Amino acid sequence: MSNTKITGALNVNGRSYPAMQQPLVVVCVDGCEQEYINQAIQAGVAPFLKKMVEHGTVLSADCVVPSFTNPNNLSIVTGVPPAVHGICGNYFYDLETKQEVMMNDAKYLRAATILATFADAGAKVAVITAKDKLRGLLGHKMRGICFSAEKADQATTEQNGIDNLLERVGMPLPSVYSAELSEFVFAAGVKLLASERPDIMYLSTTDYIQHKYAPGTPGANAFYAMMDHYLTQLDTLGAVIGLTADHGMNAKTDSAGKPNVIYLQDVLDAKVGVEKSRVILPITDPYVVHHGALGSYATVYLGTTANAAEIADQIRAIPGIELVLTREQAAQRFELPPDRIGDLVVVSERLTVIGTAASRHDLSELKLPLRSHGGISEQRVPLMFNRKLSAIPADHRLRNFDVFYLAMNNAQ
Amino acid sequence: MSNTKITGALNVNGRSYPAMQQPLVVVCVDGCEQEYINQAIQAGVAPFLKKMVEHGTVLSADCVVPSFTNPNNLSIVTGVPPAVHGICGNYFYDLETKQEVMMNDAKYLRAATILATFADAGAKVAVITAKDKLRGLLGHKMRGICFSAEKADQATTEQNGIDNLLERVGMPLPSVYSAELSEFVFAAGVKLLASERPDIMYLSTTDYIQHKYAPGTPGANAFYAMMDHYLTQLDTLGAVIGLTADHGMNAKTDSAGKPNVIYLQDVLDAKVGVEKSRVILPITDPYVVHHGALGSYATVYLGTTANAAEIADQIRAIPGIELVLTREQAAQRFELPPDRIGDLVVVSERLTVIGTAASRHDLSELKLPLRSHGGISEQRVPLMFNRKLSAIPADHRLRNFDVFYLAMNNAQ
Repeated sequence: MSNTKITGALNVNGRSYPAMQQPLVVVCVDGCEQEYINQAIQAGVAPFLKKMVEHGTVLSADCVVPSFTNPNNLSIVTGVPPAVHGICGNYFYDLETKQEVMMNDAKYLRAATILATFADAGAKVAVITAKDKLRGLLGHKMRGICFSAEKADQATTEQNGIDNLLERVGMPLPSVYSAELSEFVFAAGVKLLASERPDIMYLSTTDYIQHKYAPGTPGANAFYAMMDHYLTQLDTLGAVIGLTADHGMNAKTDSAGKPNVIYLQDVLDAKVGVEKSRVILPITDPYVVHHGALGSYATVYLGTTANAAEIADQIRAIPGIELVLTREQAAQRFELPPDRIGDLVVVSERLTVIGTAASRHDLSELKLPLRSHGGISEQRVPLMFNRKLSAIPADHRLRNFDVFYLAMNNAQ
Repeated sequence: MSNTKITGALNVNGRSYPAMQQPLVVVCVDGCEQEYINQAIQAGVAPFLKKMVEHGTVLSADCVVPSFTNPNNLSIVTGVPPAVHGICGNYFYDLETKQEVMMNDAKYLRAATILATFADAGAKVAVITAKDKLRGLLGHKMRGICFSAEKADQATTEQNGIDNLLERVGMPLPSVYSAELSEFVFAAGVKLLASERPDIMYLSTTDYIQHKYAPGTPGANAFYAMMDHYLTQLDTLGAVIGLTADHGMNAKTDSAGKPNVIYLQDVLDAKVGVEKSRVILPITDPYVVHHGALGSYATVYLGTTANAAEIADQIRAIPGIELVLTREQAAQRFELPPDRIGDLVVVSERLTVIGTAASRHDLSELKLPLRSHGGISEQRVPLMFNRKLSAIPADHRLRNFDVFYLAMNNAQ
């Protein structure tokens, strides 16, 4: 197998990753609050996940805040926080061009990925994402197989390192808003592991189900039963499996399901003046049906004349706000790139989300009570392996982006 | 009806409570994280609770921290925080006698209850609790009906204002560890409302189910369906219903259900020295099967020579700790009686609980993954009415212990 051609360890962004004897599959389960797994085990639908307690290793880890998909997926595949890799959300406000800029383009990525580095060294690498938005970032400069379930029908050998996917996987093209989008990722992963035997495979799902269904409810349990089924197959095929999440997920409503929203741009327009501030919600992406672009994190750009400390105090006083930090404080505490966050970073509490202006959020597509993420309340995520790990230093703060490192260095 | 004999409003602990034309039933649903109601509505098993959105009022409110049963039940029936009524947990450490003292005895209550005040003025009042531990406190100096489901078989007219309860309610005596213990409270409430027509009734359940089952899971939904059934009957009988909770409830485990416990006495013994500090867990009560005496709140008594600030810093540095306050800070922020809390108050994060010494907690009775409360993460609770409320001042911070006040002053 090609991975073993690599002698010694590879250095990626200052961390050391030795090649492995067995194929490694790292799974990022989007929006996987730990309780989803716990409840699926309780319901008896996840025997493999249950077995990981006894035969593997079950840990908890902190994800990156903002607890969003892109910053965390990039941290996982680079092994470093956004301060190093640069991707701290889906959007930032470019002060030079005075425009809101989408960060889906790989040109914003400032660090090499573990995936590309191993591929360059001769390892066979495969990346499968649910949504196409992540494919470009995760597969940046990477030789090998890289495709999304969303556009699986369009995959070509030239572009994606593989073609004829619907037939290979034996599933029709799933809707972008479906549990099947994630199932396609797993099903394709099993097929690829059996047929191509990649040395390293990265599977990244979508949180469509987690935005809709609470842990332990039928819709959620069905998803984790599906996942458990494919994990069993990956395990049977001999892979070392490391499983983590990009972020958790919490209800953001009252007891009747009404969302608790702070429309921060409206608040600031009233307090500071119209067009004196700009609230950016880095959760915003082209797929808003999940969450109406409402999450528990926002960043605020202020004019140079604004009194940031005073405005921070005003925001802090809003019920439901957990934390307001200056750019410098946020960059330090959450390890974010200061040039891509605003003058203030605002985090709301577990049950509350932040919007811009009420008029700019269409909640009509939210057919079920809002569940979302983005805050510190969604920072704790599972970190599980189907192998026992050798001892980790007690003072090491476990992160979801340690998953490659631990699998390669500590899995026994 | 006797209540209307009361002319004008009664003053209880500085708040004004006018008599009502219709019977008032206040329900305290123990451990009712808002998500339980939300998920029961989603599952279609709680049509009455769903209807309260349209025909009544659904609010969220903050309970008292520590988010435990006794402090909050006493706040609800007195309308004031523990700083006034004195009950800030099940246990405190008496510095004079140097003993851990249980606060179940009514002699520790420092304020009049709304219930006793109305009874004294001529209203017919009834109190039904699930566990007997609360009965003495809630019924302190109160003329009228007051009994627990736990000891319903022992109720006498002389002691409890009513007898022959099992036959009246038509249910066998429930086990203290059962959903039926709470069902008995509701069933008895409906029977009493129909037969005795009390002017004011207070129903307080137990969180046996909430400690076991997550929102939206079958065990939880069955409980809320049961509750919905009895609420419908109370509504049909013409009662104004105010519903709130003593505290919320959260999973306190990792993804495999292992509890995240900080054994604080062990930590302090190692850091400060054996017998130099005393960790008190005010959640401790004779009914430990629910939670193994593990919650997200502890208070620490230090010797006079101890450096409290340094020890506070050491506790603050433990992963999973959310907040460490001095006695004065805690008394102010959480409105607690300073003479009944320790030198430090410690609150752990949503997914973590605090124990004393590992050797002093028997977790063998925990058959399901730990769910518990006590912290700030369980502070947000439902506050619902089956009536529209007149406007509440926008700057009023809603508390669960506003439930009597709002029902009597704002229900239309």
